[in-house]
Amino acid sequence: MRPNKLRQMHRDGRPIVNAWLSIPSAYASEVACHTGVDAATVDCQHGMVGFSDAIAMFQAIGTTDAVPMVRPSANDPAQIMRFLDAGAYGVICPMISTAGQAAQLVAACRYPPVGTRSFGPARGALYGGPDYFERANEEILVLAMIETREALANLDAILATPGLDGVYVGPNDLAIELGHSPKSEHDHPDVTGAVERIRAAVVSRGLLAGIFCSSGEAAQMRLRQGFHLVTPGNDAAVFRSAYAEHVRHAREPV
Amino acid sequence: MRPNKLRQMHRDGRPIVNAWLSIPSAYASEVACHTGVDAATVDCQHGMVGFSDAIAMFQAIGTTDAVPMVRPSANDPAQIMRFLDAGAYGVICPMISTAGQAAQLVAACRYPPVGTRSFGPARGALYGGPDYFERANEEILVLAMIETREALANLDAILATPGLDGVYVGPNDLAIELGHSPKSEHDHPDVTGAVERIRAAVVSRGLLAGIFCSSGEAAQMRLRQGFHLVTPGNDAAVFRSAYAEHVRHAREPV
Amino acid sequence: MRPNKLRQMHRDGRPIVNAWLSIPSAYASEVACHTGVDAATVDCQHGMVGFSDAIAMFQAIGTTDAVPMVRPSANDPAQIMRFLDAGAYGVICPMISTAGQAAQLVAACRYPPVGTRSFGPARGALYGGPDYFERANEEILVLAMIETREALANLDAILATPGLDGVYVGPNDLAIELGHSPKSEHDHPDVTGAVERIRAAVVSRGLLAGIFCSSGEAAQMRLRQGFHLVTPGNDAAVFRSAYAEHVRHAREPV
Amino acid sequence: MRPNKLRQMHRDGRPIVNAWLSIPSAYASEVACHTGVDAATVDCQHGMVGFSDAIAMFQAIGTTDAVPMVRPSANDPAQIMRFLDAGAYGVICPMISTAGQAAQLVAACRYPPVGTRSFGPARGALYGGPDYFERANEEILVLAMIETREALANLDAILATPGLDGVYVGPNDLAIELGHSPKSEHDHPDVTGAVERIRAAVVSRGLLAGIFCSSGEAAQMRLRQGFHLVTPGNDAAVFRSAYAEHVRHAREPV
Amino acid sequence: MRPNKLRQMHRDGRPIVNAWLSIPSAYASEVACHTGVDAATVDCQHGMVGFSDAIAMFQAIGTTDAVPMVRPSANDPAQIMRFLDAGAYGVICPMISTAGQAAQLVAACRYPPVGTRSFGPARGALYGGPDYFERANEEILVLAMIETREALANLDAILATPGLDGVYVGPNDLAIELGHSPKSEHDHPDVTGAVERIRAAVVSRGLLAGIFCSSGEAAQMRLRQGFHLVTPGNDAAVFRSAYAEHVRHAREPV
Amino acid sequence: MRPNKLRQMHRDGRPIVNAWLSIPSAYASEVACHTGVDAATVDCQHGMVGFSDAIAMFQAIGTTDAVPMVRPSANDPAQIMRFLDAGAYGVICPMISTAGQAAQLVAACRYPPVGTRSFGPARGALYGGPDYFERANEEILVLAMIETREALANLDAILATPGLDGVYVGPNDLAIELGHSPKSEHDHPDVTGAVERIRAAVVSRGLLAGIFCSSGEAAQMRLRQGFHLVTPGNDAAVFRSAYAEHVRHAREPV
Repeated sequence: MRPNKLRQMHRDGRPIVNAWLSIPSAYASEVACHTGVDAATVDCQHGMVGFSDAIAMFQAIGTTDAVPMVRPSANDPAQIMRFLDAGAYGVICPMISTAGQAAQLVAACRYPPVGTRSFGPARGALYGGPDYFERANEEILVLAMIETREALANLDAILATPGLDGVYVGPNDLAIELGHSPKSEHDHPDVTGAVERIRAAVVSRGLLAGIFCSSGEAAQMRLRQGFHLVTPGNDAAVFRSAYAEHVRHAREPV
Repeated sequence: MRPNKLRQMHRDGRPIVNAWLSIPSAYASEVACHTGVDAATVDCQHGMVGFSDAIAMFQAIGTTDAVPMVRPSANDPAQIMRFLDAGAYGVICPMISTAGQAAQLVAACRYPPVGTRSFGPARGALYGGPDYFERANEEILVLAMIETREALANLDAILATPGLDGVYVGPNDLAIELGHSPKSEHDHPDVTGAVERIRAAVVSRGLLAGIFCSSGEAAQMRLRQGFHLVTPGNDAAVFRSAYAEHVRHAREPV
Repeated sequence: MRPNKLRQMHRDGRPIVNAWLSIPSAYASEVACHTGVDAATVDCQHGMVGFSDAIAMFQAIGTTDAVPMVRPSANDPAQIMRFLDAGAYGVICPMISTAGQAAQLVAACRYPPVGTRSFGPARGALYGGPDYFERANEEILVLAMIETREALANLDAILATPGLDGVYVGPNDLAIELGHSPKSEHDHPDVTGAVERIRAAVVSRGLLAGIFCSSGEAAQMRLRQGFHLVTPGNDAAVFRSAYAEHVRHAREPV
Repeated sequence: MRPNKLRQMHRDGRPIVNAWLSIPSAYASEVACHTGVDAATVDCQHGMVGFSDAIAMFQAIGTTDAVPMVRPSANDPAQIMRFLDAGAYGVICPMISTAGQAAQLVAACRYPPVGTRSFGPARGALYGGPDYFERANEEILVLAMIETREALANLDAILATPGLDGVYVGPNDLAIELGHSPKSEHDHPDVTGAVERIRAAVVSRGLLAGIFCSSGEAAQMRLRQGFHLVTPGNDAAVFRSAYAEHVRHAREPV
Repeated sequence: MRPNKLRQMHRDGRPIVNAWLSIPSAYASEVACHTGVDAATVDCQHGMVGFSDAIAMFQAIGTTDAVPMVRPSANDPAQIMRFLDAGAYGVICPMISTAGQAAQLVAACRYPPVGTRSFGPARGALYGGPDYFERANEEILVLAMIETREALANLDAILATPGLDGVYVGPNDLAIELGHSPKSEHDHPDVTGAVERIRAAVVSRGLLAGIFCSSGEAAQMRLRQGFHLVTPGNDAAVFRSAYAEHVRHAREPV
Repeated sequence: MRPNKLRQMHRDGRPIVNAWLSIPSAYASEVACHTGVDAATVDCQHGMVGFSDAIAMFQAIGTTDAVPMVRPSANDPAQIMRFLDAGAYGVICPMISTAGQAAQLVAACRYPPVGTRSFGPARGALYGGPDYFERANEEILVLAMIETREALANLDAILATPGLDGVYVGPNDLAIELGHSPKSEHDHPDVTGAVERIRAAVVSRGLLAGIFCSSGEAAQMRLRQGFHLVTPGNDAAVFRSAYAEHVRHAREPV
């Protein structure tokens, strides 16, 4: 099976830069994967992406060295199974707030006897290779999104879940839950404190700490803080602000 | 019929900023049209856009005030007719090199007796309104791309074509034809001279002068030179360079 | 944020006419929205509509003044979140039978602290505007379908759900549940009585009372009965019967 | 090979009623084919239909007894070949104005030595059967659209084209060409005279006379005039006017 | 309503051969249905098939005599309802491990008062006919997949579920659950014993016994063992091994 | 630019095995490219493949080492340009019958001053690399299909076309043109003679000789005859016959 290079990068202490794909276009995904990223996550929660789009986007990612990951819309085993069968090598699951939810998430990503995933890795085995079944339990990366008060309360129990590879902080929802407006790099101490508390707990257990960021500068800041995996912006947001900037330039007084 | 506001803007001497859409995604198109552009051109020549994509993209553009335009893959009357029927309000036709080609282009965009367009404006009449047939000949904007040596030789005859509304310079192909490498803002005197010669001839006839540019800065420069309609970059190129810049930032030494 | 005009219409006592979209075609949706309707509901329960189709249909609706709404396949928070992120301004949720289900539905449509919706309004914020997060809880319309015996038994409790904006009667399922054949305008007293009981209870609380109807005449009848929002037929059914009528005319004895 | 029942119907003097499909949805096509039609034409000229849509629509038609036909965007042999390979059993080709164009059209629909069609009937042979190659030249129906002044002038020569099965009048373009507004059932004597002249010439040669009509009543009138194949309205137009009628009913004063 | 011929075949003791469709292409589905199969199952669990693909594939199946069936991704009533509304005549539901799950599955496939299916058989009624509602409860085939240890333990209770038509063995997951590698025709006595135990129990109750097989030879073997419905291989797997065999032949030493 | 490995293989005298893709599914394409082929040709002439499908299929091919090629529907420069822009590394153009047609084909595949290709290699440059413009004229493979009597008559002139890389024999159309039935490995001396005459002429000029074959055995035979590039069957045909064989096995008398 094709190794999941993100695992090696994490072991080596190399930072992982991850593209965030919400535009339902395999061409746009391919473009995003030619920017030097190590991974690319197809966002099936807030992205405008249906299942068939996701497959096409995994194929687009598969034309490059970026590792294909997915964010499902929920902690739904059948949905997660389908994305894995379609070739996702990592799962970033939203709204994990209890150890039970974390355990269900891990189980959905692992074949028995460790987990409950049903067998039939259609495109997954094309991408991964003929020994997919034997090795998939070790290669697929499972990250839980921590983004609720409840998750903060249950953080230790969640992180103790066997088989969980790490955490991906959802800073917008976390800020909202803490009573603030959604902002990826919120500077209110409630939020910065919670983010740091999560990061420290994850790192202390030797797990992977990831986080969504709204820009490359923010991503750099998060790496400096000790996060391992960063997302330097959502594709649509980056595209929109960049194009708007060009339009503004064009309109500057002649 | 919904008026083509680009005509009024041209009459008023207001600069027209036009988005360039090569990503086959209606969502990406909608994003691009929320950046303050006046028009958006679906690129069916070099863009990764099939006919069904183009319709969806016209619908996306139609959720905003941007005027929908299209670049067909060739000066092909049947193809142009289909894009107009789908709601395009402007045509930027590649590779117009002779007056005869310009006349065929204009004819393809106009109903008889002026032109040869067949009747059946399906989505066009939804977007334009019930008096589409009566007014379409006056509202649809027809621009010829000037991008060959032959076109330079025939410039006056092309510009004299009745019904032609203006020109859109293709600076990459023009540079190649003049023996240089493709570059939207080439600074070789051969190319700058040809671009200026085209612009001056177009303006002197009261026609609309448009040009592709690779960035907002370049677009501003072209407006300063006296062009009326500018495209501050291709969507995929802008997205790629912006995302790559964020990735670079993220990776800067911690 | 673009106001949800259905709220103002309801306050003003103006009848709301809503198109019902089950054909997975953005062009057909656009056609339906050029018939004078105030709203259009993409039917993702019984319609032949996948998630990607729904986005395209919301875009088509967004080319007109009709308010985009959706019927999800179930009271599933993740699914509802996705439709809202894609730009739906109203949710008509099937099979709400208890107050708990109604509360879960409302929560799925509202950001914290009122609800549980996760943040990431991709296309929703394009359509709604930059203050989407601040205003969405107030603008998104939430209607519960009442169509089971259990719902009739729990009607008061359902209607007392904070944040629920109203009800949409599903007359076919309601008739089946009451032991009759599916018929939108069933005239058995069991059914007519239940429909009137629902309507009266909804209206007495100042909520919005909507109902599916099989035709314009039926819709007019329902408005006369005091409903606020009516659907004058399913797109596919209207198309089929109209085309069949033309075919019959064509075949009439010469 | 599955026989083309339209040929037998024509020989038997039975009227042929043909659905007109411009909505790019296989579901809408299937709905249209459940209205009692004998044939259904996928409109790839003015319809909002790409090649992939057309294949899906041929499949939808193929779930019923209606005979699948296509209108290509132009008299383009490669395009026509592709539609035939995809299963079209009849071609209604726009803008045939000369005998040479008619001959090219027929050649595009026939294998050598009669014509020039290239071999590779992918879906065509699934739909038609294993002896497709041997019989296709006899089964595929080839109709030329007569809709220009030039065609009127060349009518006899066009009709004399060996292998041409008949004509389909395009009354809107014909009216425009004759200096009038587009209207399927124009009552100006110029237009009615031209339509009748075409019909009579076609019938006198034993060929099939077809015509587009805007409604079932108009179709009945055309059958009375002696046409063999009628189209009782475009799908989108029928849907729009029917839905608008329901909306009007709904809004009638309470 | 079009009868479900699989029921008659089962009553008659005729073997049922079922195609397995995981390739999201209506053309590939149509090809598969021209191989002499009696049924075709669209695999929405492990297949690369989204909802919109499934509709197109049902249409493709509907161009032939094969009976359209579906495997949903889970025992999810809303999802199953959607596939039935889209025209599936049979459901093969994965991971049924308890009588309660079996009862929920049956309820999802039946209208009240027998079940809980909501009314709105859009394409289903086109395919099935106008009396769909009256007859669907009797025609739709409901098969539970038995593929877990828990299911083996609960086998009798599952089979006693009123309305359950039979069972479809998932031999790969079953083998994994029993501690072996995934292999459709595993020869370990644990697996062969479990398969035979399931088959015997199903047959003894007069129910339909189906099973997935990896080839035609395996399917023949299963029919010999007394299974009624067999699937002679997954489309993608058959295609891949056949094409690979041709490639190997081509490369044989010259 | 990523080198076109087919050129090196030809120089090295290694046989090239090429998959033939007519099923419009990127997943099926990916499956086909995991069978050990060196190249894969997307058939946009007789395949059921639209432009958007072709892009997705090029992406699928691009997940493997197979070289992406395309067969356009005709010798149409604008269409060929679009496939090259989408990433095709080779063109197999149907129906080349004269030296003029061959020259136009070559020109369509080459940038000026050698050819007439317009600049804008969107996905092509992603797949090929940043120096695409500088190297594309040397890397893109251009093969002319020889399949008409006229082509046989003009064979020497066609082969003398500067820039033409080779020939791909279309044995079905060739057989038909010579008065026989379509059969890829026809054994009539007219056909075998013509095929050998073409092969010998191509080889004698040092060009690449390719041919379509209906199976792996036939492909091996063609390699033995001295062809360099062979296609061991069409995807749909291979799939159909393989699946039918499995169905036959399943049905063999028990």
